[in-house]
Amino acid sequence: MNFLRRRLSDSSFVANLPNGYMPDLQRPESSSSSPASPATERRHPQPLAASFSSPGSSLFSSFSSAMKQTPQAPSGLMEPPTPVTPVVQRPRILLVIDDAHTDWSKYFHGKKVNGDIEIRVEQAEFSELNLAAYVTGGCMVDMQVVRNGTKIVRSFKPDFILVRQHAYSMALAEDYRSLVIGLQYGGLPAVNSLYSVYNFCSKPWVFSQLIKIFHSLGPEKFPLVEQTFFPNHKPMLTAPNFPVVIKLGHAHAGMGKIKVENQHDYQDITSVVAMAKTYATTEAFIDSKYDIRIQKIGSNYKAYMRTSISGNWKANTGSAMLEQVAMTERYRLWVDSCSEMFGGLDICAVKAVHSKDGRDYIIEYL
Amino acid sequence: MNFLRRRLSDSSFVANLPNGYMPDLQRPESSSSSPASPATERRHPQPLAASFSSPGSSLFSSFSSAMKQTPQAPSGLMEPPTPVTPVVQRPRILLVIDDAHTDWSKYFHGKKVNGDIEIRVEQAEFSELNLAAYVTGGCMVDMQVVRNGTKIVRSFKPDFILVRQHAYSMALAEDYRSLVIGLQYGGLPAVNSLYSVYNFCSKPWVFSQLIKIFHSLGPEKFPLVEQTFFPNHKPMLTAPNFPVVIKLGHAHAGMGKIKVENQHDYQDITSVVAMAKTYATTEAFIDSKYDIRIQKIGSNYKAYMRTSISGNWKANTGSAMLEQVAMTERYRLWVDSCSEMFGGLDICAVKAVHSKDGRDYIIEYL
Amino acid sequence: MNFLRRRLSDSSFVANLPNGYMPDLQRPESSSSSPASPATERRHPQPLAASFSSPGSSLFSSFSSAMKQTPQAPSGLMEPPTPVTPVVQRPRILLVIDDAHTDWSKYFHGKKVNGDIEIRVEQAEFSELNLAAYVTGGCMVDMQVVRNGTKIVRSFKPDFILVRQHAYSMALAEDYRSLVIGLQYGGLPAVNSLYSVYNFCSKPWVFSQLIKIFHSLGPEKFPLVEQTFFPNHKPMLTAPNFPVVIKLGHAHAGMGKIKVENQHDYQDITSVVAMAKTYATTEAFIDSKYDIRIQKIGSNYKAYMRTSISGNWKANTGSAMLEQVAMTERYRLWVDSCSEMFGGLDICAVKAVHSKDGRDYIIEYL
Amino acid sequence: MNFLRRRLSDSSFVANLPNGYMPDLQRPESSSSSPASPATERRHPQPLAASFSSPGSSLFSSFSSAMKQTPQAPSGLMEPPTPVTPVVQRPRILLVIDDAHTDWSKYFHGKKVNGDIEIRVEQAEFSELNLAAYVTGGCMVDMQVVRNGTKIVRSFKPDFILVRQHAYSMALAEDYRSLVIGLQYGGLPAVNSLYSVYNFCSKPWVFSQLIKIFHSLGPEKFPLVEQTFFPNHKPMLTAPNFPVVIKLGHAHAGMGKIKVENQHDYQDITSVVAMAKTYATTEAFIDSKYDIRIQKIGSNYKAYMRTSISGNWKANTGSAMLEQVAMTERYRLWVDSCSEMFGGLDICAVKAVHSKDGRDYIIEYL
Repeated sequence: MNFLRRRLSDSSFVANLPNGYMPDLQRPESSSSSPASPATERRHPQPLAASFSSPGSSLFSSFSSAMKQTPQAPSGLMEPPTPVTPVVQRPRILLVIDDAHTDWSKYFHGKKVNGDIEIRVEQAEFSELNLAAYVTGGCMVDMQVVRNGTKIVRSFKPDFILVRQHAYSMALAEDYRSLVIGLQYGGLPAVNSLYSVYNFCSKPWVFSQLIKIFHSLGPEKFPLVEQTFFPNHKPMLTAPNFPVVIKLGHAHAGMGKIKVENQHDYQDITSVVAMAKTYATTEAFIDSKYDIRIQKIGSNYKAYMRTSISGNWKANTGSAMLEQVAMTERYRLWVDSCSEMFGGLDICAVKAVHSKDGRDYIIEYL
Repeated sequence: MNFLRRRLSDSSFVANLPNGYMPDLQRPESSSSSPASPATERRHPQPLAASFSSPGSSLFSSFSSAMKQTPQAPSGLMEPPTPVTPVVQRPRILLVIDDAHTDWSKYFHGKKVNGDIEIRVEQAEFSELNLAAYVTGGCMVDMQVVRNGTKIVRSFKPDFILVRQHAYSMALAEDYRSLVIGLQYGGLPAVNSLYSVYNFCSKPWVFSQLIKIFHSLGPEKFPLVEQTFFPNHKPMLTAPNFPVVIKLGHAHAGMGKIKVENQHDYQDITSVVAMAKTYATTEAFIDSKYDIRIQKIGSNYKAYMRTSISGNWKANTGSAMLEQVAMTERYRLWVDSCSEMFGGLDICAVKAVHSKDGRDYIIEYL
Repeated sequence: MNFLRRRLSDSSFVANLPNGYMPDLQRPESSSSSPASPATERRHPQPLAASFSSPGSSLFSSFSSAMKQTPQAPSGLMEPPTPVTPVVQRPRILLVIDDAHTDWSKYFHGKKVNGDIEIRVEQAEFSELNLAAYVTGGCMVDMQVVRNGTKIVRSFKPDFILVRQHAYSMALAEDYRSLVIGLQYGGLPAVNSLYSVYNFCSKPWVFSQLIKIFHSLGPEKFPLVEQTFFPNHKPMLTAPNFPVVIKLGHAHAGMGKIKVENQHDYQDITSVVAMAKTYATTEAFIDSKYDIRIQKIGSNYKAYMRTSISGNWKANTGSAMLEQVAMTERYRLWVDSCSEMFGGLDICAVKAVHSKDGRDYIIEYL
Repeated sequence: MNFLRRRLSDSSFVANLPNGYMPDLQRPESSSSSPASPATERRHPQPLAASFSSPGSSLFSSFSSAMKQTPQAPSGLMEPPTPVTPVVQRPRILLVIDDAHTDWSKYFHGKKVNGDIEIRVEQAEFSELNLAAYVTGGCMVDMQVVRNGTKIVRSFKPDFILVRQHAYSMALAEDYRSLVIGLQYGGLPAVNSLYSVYNFCSKPWVFSQLIKIFHSLGPEKFPLVEQTFFPNHKPMLTAPNFPVVIKLGHAHAGMGKIKVENQHDYQDITSVVAMAKTYATTEAFIDSKYDIRIQKIGSNYKAYMRTSISGNWKANTGSAMLEQVAMTERYRLWVDSCSEMFGGLDICAVKAVHSKDGRDYIIEYL
């Protein structure tokens, strides 16, 4: 158990830990020895869950207002019309798309929306879901999960979606974009919006939104890293300086990311990029003192500093020390600007690097 | 030569023909005998070109204002700073992404933006383009075209983009979404916006926006066809009624579209859908009297009626007769609603079917 | 439970049932309602297992001789040299690649090869395996299986392989050809040979071998069905007669197979073939009285007649009645000829159709 | 122009140059500046052509005997029966699959097979071909080539095939295996056999045959390089020594090949391998003095030594000096052993490396 793990298991620390501070960590693969799944930390979504399930929170209120807007919308087609008996309303179904490590149902236990409507939580991973979506009938979700060795099969119409997994990864050959389309097709309200989930399925596409912010705010206020985009390997002739970091395709948790020291290796790598048949970006390697992660959940802001212990240049690989740091106006501007992308984000996180020569570089939206 | 072709070759008719009334027609394949490229009509983009290149038009003005906003933005990085000599400005480069059938340069011959800045038109298909895009340096486009047997290779930084090709087709194995990302990354203004071009790369994703309009306006004002979406073949058990039309994946020009008469054939088809490994939609087959196409280019509206002559149930297959019809308030509402999708569309077209029993069904955004 | 299932559960019948008479049946999918997994019968591999594990059988002897040839070959590299103590030899590991429905270990319980060498059976599906293969070190297999809710992880070097699963299916997006390459790379003997397993990963490639036999024996002795191959949808203009059966790509259990009644539907289907981006074959639809399946396991021959009960034109879909029939010289010639493909097959099965007008048509190698 | 290019343009040198000594060189891409197409040499197939077209050669005789075996086989189905007039037979069609750099027709000008049957040469690249293949009707090939700016469209039934292009490359996204299946389906004789062409579409699959030879001849006679195969990135934990060469997937001309210096870079690279979703091999980097290429065309043997001038570790990248060297018994054994793979190869070439410490390593079959 590394240092960070030990720190994370300290319960008072955990209590203050935000969710979403490292959403690019994948669930651990079965083989812990795989070099390709270097996640050594577990995210702790309890605070998000708490924040989400707290009646006063902005997330809960977005849930509530969604429920008001669609009192009977997602029913119809296949359900008999609900009798207009105002006394007891059917519970609303919240579908949480997440792995089994977090039990979301307990955060909503006993919670109600709009007075006295109960919340029923269904939780599954993308890989455990299928659906059919209708113009007037919402979205009928089929869920097949194995819990404690028992297979559970359920069909239901969710009223609200909380997406806590990546919908697409080239490294894992996981592509759930068709499910995202189907949920949107069924008109389901979601946190973050399904519209943004869909547009987040290509990192350079998200980065092109950061570039718009950069041009609007200027390099002083929004110090975006200098990066170059190539649609394929062919225009990748050379880099202006070395070392350079090449990021290949759309992946998470440090996959498809490589540091290149010189022109010879760069040419070799482009011949490997050719095999992956996808886009790539290059950016100057920044000698990092620490990473900064700023997050905004509803109207709640937090900033974290992450210092590598193992010395791996990929900060999300190997062990690291995580500390909460003061939220500054500068950080707030970064995360507020980003939270306006793709029609507005309820949950938003920005990653930056603070270099050894004292400069900040905004690296990516997480 | 079929009837429509003859009508289309009537020059006075052509003069009134809008562009975009059948943007889902692909350029003819080399082998005209292929059953998979049933396009028998050629689109006639001249009116769009004329409309676009007319200084008074809204499209031209969007071009002009884009040029004002970015007097030197897309330069930088690689170009020496332009000396502040207001006398002669460098010409602005308009990159038109279209096949060679339309010579866009002639519509901009002698045209100027913002007073006296010349327009240089570069034209190529997606397949002839490559690029590198920068945070501060815009987008450097490499173009390799063969014109009259001569290969032309050029590198330049466009100032504005006009996209007149599909960026993605599963049937043709053409995927240019990485180029769209790159152009957006380079911050290039475009008609339609690159943001919308990217979000148009999945038909059910676009249809989910039509569903939002349907829920907002109601079935009377926005009579959207009843359709069902499946992320893959597995939930495709049966259809409520037959015949049913199955549309497979994201394609154009009638590709991946099949009419199914009964449950046995439906099951056979789902086993074929499984091989294509993509999403599908089903909708009740509508016995069509004629198709309606409503388009909006800037503030210019037109409506067309298309009557099949060959009797093929795919209206865009075989010969058909095309007539301009009166623009009604109803049609205007349809196309105006659609033109607000994805942050606003400069060019917008809606397809509906008028059934033999006298009802309208909005089928798709084109 | 349908008629066949009932017959199959009759134990005296089962005792005589051969393995391999329906090897194209996939393991049942989790959702039994899926139209795409129409398997209603379960294969019964016990007789194969019995045949394979019987010391007098040709399969067992191929196992034995393989063990003689490679007393220490697959060890080496990573294992310390076995001390030359002839008294007790390490047990030989037989890796059976099959789903969990058949417990192969019980057929080898207490069996020995080459006198007194014990056999250890490891069983897993392709999806549960990974490996590394060496020039001099054989093949180190990693296995992760869940048995009775417990995850079992094991690494070992198999001495022999028995492949009882399809290595490739376009319909299920399952592609284990890289594992087959790795097992061959590691020099592992197998039944059937890995060389043949690899060459069986494309049905038309196998069919091209049947065509060679057809040209050698003539249409009287080897009545191969008239079939046409297309590398893609483009040359699929029409069929000489209707109805025609179109088979798409490489799949099993009736997937990707569709009967087409007329030219209009044929053209629609080719537009769907385009989306699947693979090859297709067409053959005249044969009005079947019953199917014939002839199998050869080592030197053991059996013939079966399968009569559809449900009336589905896909004989492997819906319920059917299976009866063993007399093995004729004609059948023996068919299966003997096929068993010489790809360097020789230990297990071989041929499918033919007997039409209502009394003719035989060899349809495929199974 | 580099040194080798200058040497190659020396005509007396060219006259002695063999074909096939560098068949892994791709045709130059349009953009010569691309680092991914490092071919600086052009192959010179004239000697092969000469050898093939010489009536006394074994290749020509394989052509002749193929013509005898199939006097009317590939006709039929679509052609009227040839009248039995022995006086003038229709010319036989040789389809050469090659790029336009070599004009194969001139080598067969005036040549005849089996006495007085003329040879007609058709030449096209895989990308310019399509086909339909029949059980009894051979193979109808559609060819669309552009020659001197003119598009030529032809349909014909070839009698014989000469394949001079790679049928599959992951780097170029070129996959013509369906065409190879179709040609085999049509029963066409070919040099090399279509059977071997199909089995050459995966380099580790070919290497597994070299391993069989290695085990049969032993390391002294057949010094195969020590290599490890991984079906995917997951088992790629580390390498026993560094530097190590990683080869990714099935590609040519140095694509997908990278030298890795240490464990950190190795881990980075495996995360890139994950994106390419294919197999990989690793082998110890050999400090090369020169490359050896041994080829056998029919019964004609030649050996070449290639010394890098530019110093790139990829010998087929950058400039190199090529010299013919003496054919030894050792070399003859290598190439003879390899020529027995996949049922026998008419054209065969082996690549080895001679290291600076004086040892030979057989690297790959070309």
